[in-house]
Parts: sequence; structure tokens; C-alpha cells
Amino acid sequence: MATDTNNWVSRIRSGDPRALARAITTVENRAPESLELLKALFPHTGHARVIGMTGAPGAGKSTLVDQLAKEYRKENKTIGIIAVDPTSPYTGGAILGDRIRMQSHYSDPGIYIRSMATRGSLGGLAGATTDVAAVLDASGRDLVLIETVGVGQDEVDIVRLAEITVVILVPGMGDDVQTIKAGIMEIADIFVINKSDREGAERVEREIRAMQSLSTRSDNWTPPIVKTVATDGHGVPELAKAIASYQDFLRTHNLSLRKKVQNWQERLVEMLRQSLLERVLREHMADGAVSRYAAEIAEHKRDPYSLVEELVAKLGRP
Amino acid sequence: MATDTNNWVSRIRSGDPRALARAITTVENRAPESLELLKALFPHTGHARVIGMTGAPGAGKSTLVDQLAKEYRKENKTIGIIAVDPTSPYTGGAILGDRIRMQSHYSDPGIYIRSMATRGSLGGLAGATTDVAAVLDASGRDLVLIETVGVGQDEVDIVRLAEITVVILVPGMGDDVQTIKAGIMEIADIFVINKSDREGAERVEREIRAMQSLSTRSDNWTPPIVKTVATDGHGVPELAKAIASYQDFLRTHNLSLRKKVQNWQERLVEMLRQSLLERVLREHMADGAVSRYAAEIAEHKRDPYSLVEELVAKLGRP
Repeated sequence: MATDTNNWVSRIRSGDPRALARAITTVENRAPESLELLKALFPHTGHARVIGMTGAPGAGKSTLVDQLAKEYRKENKTIGIIAVDPTSPYTGGAILGDRIRMQSHYSDPGIYIRSMATRGSLGGLAGATTDVAAVLDASGRDLVLIETVGVGQDEVDIVRLAEITVVILVPGMGDDVQTIKAGIMEIADIFVINKSDREGAERVEREIRAMQSLSTRSDNWTPPIVKTVATDGHGVPELAKAIASYQDFLRTHNLSLRKKVQNWQERLVEMLRQSLLERVLREHMADGAVSRYAAEIAEHKRDPYSLVEELVAKLGRP
Repeated sequence: MATDTNNWVSRIRSGDPRALARAITTVENRAPESLELLKALFPHTGHARVIGMTGAPGAGKSTLVDQLAKEYRKENKTIGIIAVDPTSPYTGGAILGDRIRMQSHYSDPGIYIRSMATRGSLGGLAGATTDVAAVLDASGRDLVLIETVGVGQDEVDIVRLAEITVVILVPGMGDDVQTIKAGIMEIADIFVINKSDREGAERVEREIRAMQSLSTRSDNWTPPIVKTVATDGHGVPELAKAIASYQDFLRTHNLSLRKKVQNWQERLVEMLRQSLLERVLREHMADGAVSRYAAEIAEHKRDPYSLVEELVAKLGRP
């Protein structure tokens, strides 16, 4: 078993795409062997630069991420893209778009794209995404780009776990539509105004500046605003430069490690929460106990708050 | 203490708006006294009809919910509205809109509106929303309308916990924008096409019908499609009728209890997960232990997966 895992890890690290694909699926589904695999991969992580990119639906995230990946390919960097999109147009367009997209990179083994369209798994989408990023990191990718629509808390959690967070806005869609998660403006290390050839780009820029004048970051970094037109690649080299500047800033001020410690604090609590529940369900709840309790609560024979107190108090007693 | 809680419960049940507001804040913030309060209120819950209403940003949810509330007021029903909107236009429009909205109902004590704009609390937004709905239920409201933007998993979880789920779509916004959470179409008990005077309403209706022809619900209910123009109240009585029909259907087929049992199963697991974590952090993690562990992981001195295994195994040992 351990030998199998070691062999698997070697194949992942040598760049075998099938071994990598199987590892990602295993981790995403929290399959039984995922824990051993993640433990074995962990010593090989920590080298990739993880960049989170988020914005409103329709902001052109996928196109921009693709263009940025191509830009990095010019420097011979290898890239892993994790596209997390739990929203989908009800016509099913997203999945189709995704397939077209994967084909366009098919011939370049230096870009590996993986979609995570589902909630991921028991441990939550943010946890699953971080673990998938760790697999890509361990496989030797220089950069991992995580792309997600910035609308739900899950998605904010995902980009917060990246080293660098890019928030993508677009002009001229109206206030109704420029709807992103409250709090997402605050986590941006870099702003992109995509589709910046449209009317209203200056207004978006003014609004970002106005917001920035109201708040200061604890690290004193002022997030730059980069204007792009992702469809023709305009502004993409400037975005790569802005990312490199922020990386230099993190290095110069010794902030990378601090950010990683903060992230691991949250991740650790989340992992603990999930593992504790699994142990209790396994050891202290007989088959069907949860549904029997739920029926008693629904029939008002029992209050759920006292029940949970009792169950937690019982924990660890023989 | 118990006398205080009993007194508080009496005031909530007698319709004292300040006692109600304080109870909701207490529950939303998971303040220390919230558990005792929820236990005391639980026997008084189970009477309100809880309706979840969700849709894309810009679908006109707030206006529709307000109109529906007014419709129910004609029958002298009392209403609690919980507006959960973790997204916000980056110009801050939502909060302003919310204030204007509250003023318009100010004179009618039969409608109580409460916004939950933040993530809520430790237990997650869905859990906090369910507890707030329980408070409104216990206070004697006939109906609780929970309104949320249908974009993140949190929001889907919220409306799933309602007895009746209304999904609101709009025509003519283009595929880019008609972006709602994957899976949300499947949880609709009733569809609304709002702004149905706009071009494209028939197309949306055809698409819903096409989707319905592909799937059947286990309860054999076919979700009706109601066309509304919320701004002038058009179609709102029909929506109230559709909701009443579905309620009759649930009653006739004895499905209400089944739905409640299902909901409590999920809620119970979520409550357990949170309470277990709190106990372990309190009893087994000294101050600063989490950040020390996180630093060791960030420096690659320790792998997080083995650490969590060890911590969970230690649990309950003296």
C-alpha cells in the first residue's frame, strides 16, 4: 500500500498526466486513499505560486485566466488551472464552454485545466480546492491559477486561500449586475477592469479609488488597477507584471509566510471540524440514529439544541 | 436566569417588537444566551409556513417578496421577512435599498423585516437563518418569507430548509446574467417569471418546460410557472394561489412531515459538527495552539493531515 502510494507520487512528480488526473479525482472525492496520498505529497508542496482570480458572472474570468496562462507559457512556466464554478447558466452553457476551452489547450502539456463544478465533497469546496491545488503544486507546476465566480461565501473562501488574489470587474453592466460578494473588494491584492474598451471603465476605476481612499490595509500595499481586454490579450502582460510586483512586495516584507500561517489556521480548524464529525458519526451514532432523532425533532418530541448538547457531552466516554 | 428567559419568551410571544429584535440579534450572533432561548422557544415553533424565495441578482426578489407580503396582509396574516443577501453591488446600493424598503413597511406592525447581510456566525449562514426563522415562527407570525440571492451554496442551503421554495427567473437578461446556482432549478416547488412584460418571457417559460420534461420529482408534483410584474403587483395573487395549492398538495399527501424530517437530519449533523469543534477547541487546544500548529505546517515541519488524525484520536481521552 505504502509502496503503491510512493509509486503514484513518483509518477505525479514525473509529470504523468494520468497519474495527476487520478490524484485530483481521488482528492476531490475524498476517496479512502486520499489521506495517505496527501500526506505523501505534502513534503513536495510549497513551491508553486497560487493565484486566485474572482469576479462577477460574465466578467470574462475564463478568457482572462487563459490569456494569463499563455503569457506565463512564454516564460516556459508550467501552469495548473482549477476552474471552480458552482453557478451555471440554466441553459447549461458553462459546461459546453468548458469543453471548448479544454480543447484549445489540448496540445500544450504545459497547461493543465481541471474543472470543479460540484460542491466538491464533505469537507467543503474551499477545502477540496486547496487540496487539489496542493496536488498540482506537488506535481511541479510553477503556477496554480484558481478561478471562481465571486458570489458566494464558498468562493470567497477559495480565493482567500490563495497567495495572491485578483478581483475582476467590468464596466457598463449596471449596478444590478456588478454584484459580487460583500467583502470581496477588501481581499483584492490586484484589481482588473476587464472589457476596459467598454464605456464606463473610468467610472469603475474612480469607484475603486474612492473605496481605497476609505480603507488602509495592514500591510500598506495599495492594490494596483490593471485594465485588460481579455479577448484580444490587451493588458495581460501588465497583469503578469502587477502579480510579479506583489510577489516581490511579499518577499521583501517577509509576508508570504505570515499569509500561509493565517491560511493554515483556518484550514486546520475546518479539517478538525470535519474529522471530528466523522469520528462521532462512526463511533457514537448507530445506523439510522440521525434520521430517528430528526423524526423526533420534527414531531416536536425533542428539542434539537438539548439533543446536540447531550451528544457532544457523551463524546469520548466509553 | 430561567425566569428571565421565560419572561423574554412571553414578551416575544405577545408581539413585543423590541423583545423580538433582541432575540433575533442574540440568535444571529450566537450570543451565550441564544441556546437557552432557542430551547425555550422550540415548543412554540412549527406553526408558521416558511417560504424560501430565490433567484438571480436583479431578478426583483425584494419587490416580489414585498408584494407577496402585502397580498397576505389582505387576509390579515402576519409576516416575517428575512432578507439574506451576502452579495452587494460594490457601490453599496443594496444596503441603501434595504433601508428605503424597511421604511415603506414601517407603519404596519403586521410585517416584520430583518436583513441578514453578513455570514451570520460560526454555525454558517443556513443554520443562523433557520434559527432566526424559528424565532419568528415562535413569535406567532403566520408566514416567514426568506429571501436570498440564488448564487452560492449557502443560499441554496437556506431555501432548501424552507417548506416551500420559489425560484424567480427573469427574461431578456442574456445567458451571461441568468446565472444561478447549479441545482437550484431542481429545488423549485414554484417558478416565477418576474418582469414578464419584457421580451423573452415565453422563451424562459419554454426552457423551464423543456427542463421539466427531462426530470420527474419523487413526489410527482409539477412546479407551476407564475408570471409576475412585481413592480405593479401583476400576478402576485396568482403566486399566492400557487403557494396555497402546493401547501394543499403537501397536506393531502402527508409530505410536510417528511420534508421536515429530511431538513432536521441535515441541520442536526451541521449543529453537531459545530458543537464538537467548539468542545475540542475549548478542552483540548491551549491558547495559541492552533496558530502554533499552523506555523509548523506553513514551515513544512509537520503535515496537517497526520496532525488532524492525531488530534481527533486524542479526543475524549483524559
